[in-house]
Amino acid sequence: MKAIRIVGNKGLASLVLERDVQRPEAQSGQLLIRVEAAGLNRADILQSLGQYPAPPGVPIDVPGLEYAGVVEAIGDDVAGFNLGDRVMGLVGGGAFAEYLVAEKSEILPIPGALSFAQAACIPEAFATAFDALVTQGGLVASDRVLIHAIGSGVGVAALQICRAWGALTLGTSRSETKLRSCVSEYGLNVPLLCSEVPAFAEAARTSTQGRGVSLVVDLVGGPYLTETFQAMETRGRIILVGLLGGSTVELNLRMLMQKRIHLTGTVMRSRSREEKASVTQAIIDHLIPMFQSKVLRPKLDSVFVFDQLSDAIQRMQSNRSFGKIVLTWPH
Amino acid sequence: MKAIRIVGNKGLASLVLERDVQRPEAQSGQLLIRVEAAGLNRADILQSLGQYPAPPGVPIDVPGLEYAGVVEAIGDDVAGFNLGDRVMGLVGGGAFAEYLVAEKSEILPIPGALSFAQAACIPEAFATAFDALVTQGGLVASDRVLIHAIGSGVGVAALQICRAWGALTLGTSRSETKLRSCVSEYGLNVPLLCSEVPAFAEAARTSTQGRGVSLVVDLVGGPYLTETFQAMETRGRIILVGLLGGSTVELNLRMLMQKRIHLTGTVMRSRSREEKASVTQAIIDHLIPMFQSKVLRPKLDSVFVFDQLSDAIQRMQSNRSFGKIVLTWPH
Repeated sequence: MKAIRIVGNKGLASLVLERDVQRPEAQSGQLLIRVEAAGLNRADILQSLGQYPAPPGVPIDVPGLEYAGVVEAIGDDVAGFNLGDRVMGLVGGGAFAEYLVAEKSEILPIPGALSFAQAACIPEAFATAFDALVTQGGLVASDRVLIHAIGSGVGVAALQICRAWGALTLGTSRSETKLRSCVSEYGLNVPLLCSEVPAFAEAARTSTQGRGVSLVVDLVGGPYLTETFQAMETRGRIILVGLLGGSTVELNLRMLMQKRIHLTGTVMRSRSREEKASVTQAIIDHLIPMFQSKVLRPKLDSVFVFDQLSDAIQRMQSNRSFGKIVLTWPH
Repeated sequence: MKAIRIVGNKGLASLVLERDVQRPEAQSGQLLIRVEAAGLNRADILQSLGQYPAPPGVPIDVPGLEYAGVVEAIGDDVAGFNLGDRVMGLVGGGAFAEYLVAEKSEILPIPGALSFAQAACIPEAFATAFDALVTQGGLVASDRVLIHAIGSGVGVAALQICRAWGALTLGTSRSETKLRSCVSEYGLNVPLLCSEVPAFAEAARTSTQGRGVSLVVDLVGGPYLTETFQAMETRGRIILVGLLGGSTVELNLRMLMQKRIHLTGTVMRSRSREEKASVTQAIIDHLIPMFQSKVLRPKLDSVFVFDQLSDAIQRMQSNRSFGKIVLTWPH
């Protein structure tokens, strides 16, 4: 089969499209999926740079963390699926290929009439946002939620989930265009335009009648964190899901103490089978019905064929993308 | 009445013993307590240096956050107390005086036959340790708990609570003598001697069969935090209760994310009446019986009369104290 492989350590030049990669086989409890579309994530780029090694049990040389496709073969001890089912999901790696194997407990049905490209926008962004906001953050309608990098895939997903839950939303971005779209397309309540030096705390406090934000989905980290502390109410929660702004930061812990802030780090990829199964079930129970009723909508930025992976990466690195960049196989 | 007052802003020299301070009066829902002994805390020193202002509703110029004494008068709308009752508790300030007023919902009975000096060791240390470990940390017997600055009042209290709950305990200190006493007197499992540069992570991992610690009570902050991340298991919890090691720190957030660490800051003093009442009730329900049965024992370092406050502060700042330093009025 065809697949994108990481060959050598020449950075992004290590990503090559190969045509004779061995097709994986579904073991007991697994399904073989024909990949129609796969979402591009920054983690794929990090992995090709050697900075985000694959966890045990997944292909170490084929990136790709989410897919949409069709059930091609079914392993032993799998019930509830039929050949030809339209499915999507998260995998630890291996989605940048024509075929992948997935655990039965980590597969989601594609909701309604969504295209494969649209469906490929859902798993990583919405699972991350839902897990951060609801499972870990305990989102309720009275929350005032600050979402950093709101124009990203996770950011737009978090925005939609917050609005569906009835919470007030505040979002930061360095792009006025993205903020405007978040307001008009998804009902963002408080857009916060940021420049190099983040300064959003005062506006965040004013727009929450001085109370401060109660919950933060932070994809940025770095220099945003101290300013985030300033924007928060006592006992507010921060769920740190990304480090676009840098991983090493000088922090004032006194403010964290005085405000009794809860700061929780999170990643999805290295979790146990059991945890991934429970994330999958939560998405099936809570989000899939909302996609069917169109309360939630995947946000597709652009589609590239796998042959143009380098163009797709360039678009991601330009920070011009709004929503998800998706890769497909030409037919 | 006599009281220690903060007069001017000459640092520790601002703390003066005055003899004609107005005695407070118990309002509705309050009791007037004759103070027999008061614990000394670093926060008292910070307050005299202008770094830890008193919250609203407490005397701003009389330090002192915990006391043991006798009920002298009872305000309206107070049931369940009699004149002469031996009581102890936390206050927002004002304990360095012959009399103070306390809310009825924040008063604890002195357990058994403990002296006033012994009782004055209990409120701040055990309330802080219990709240951090049990209420916020969810302590269970299978936890491996790392306690920083284990020779401090909160440290020894945390050690005793962990042992009473059946958890494995690891404790850091820069004093070999204190560590030895923690082992022999209170059953500390793993003593970790620290020098200027903390390096306890490897020993912590080895002594937990490679699993790492699951819960941390951190009174140090500063440079200990990164090493603490190293010592922890995935999804471990850190409760930050002090900043003996400094408040500004350079942190690697990637490790916090990858290990999915929960970092929670906490302070007691600025909490609402309702929260303080619930902390008090938890102490009455869970800890007072353990003091009566001598499972828990207050750790008294030394007793000074209020006239010798500067000597008491000097002892605290020397880091030679082990357990609590207590102040009393001469009779």
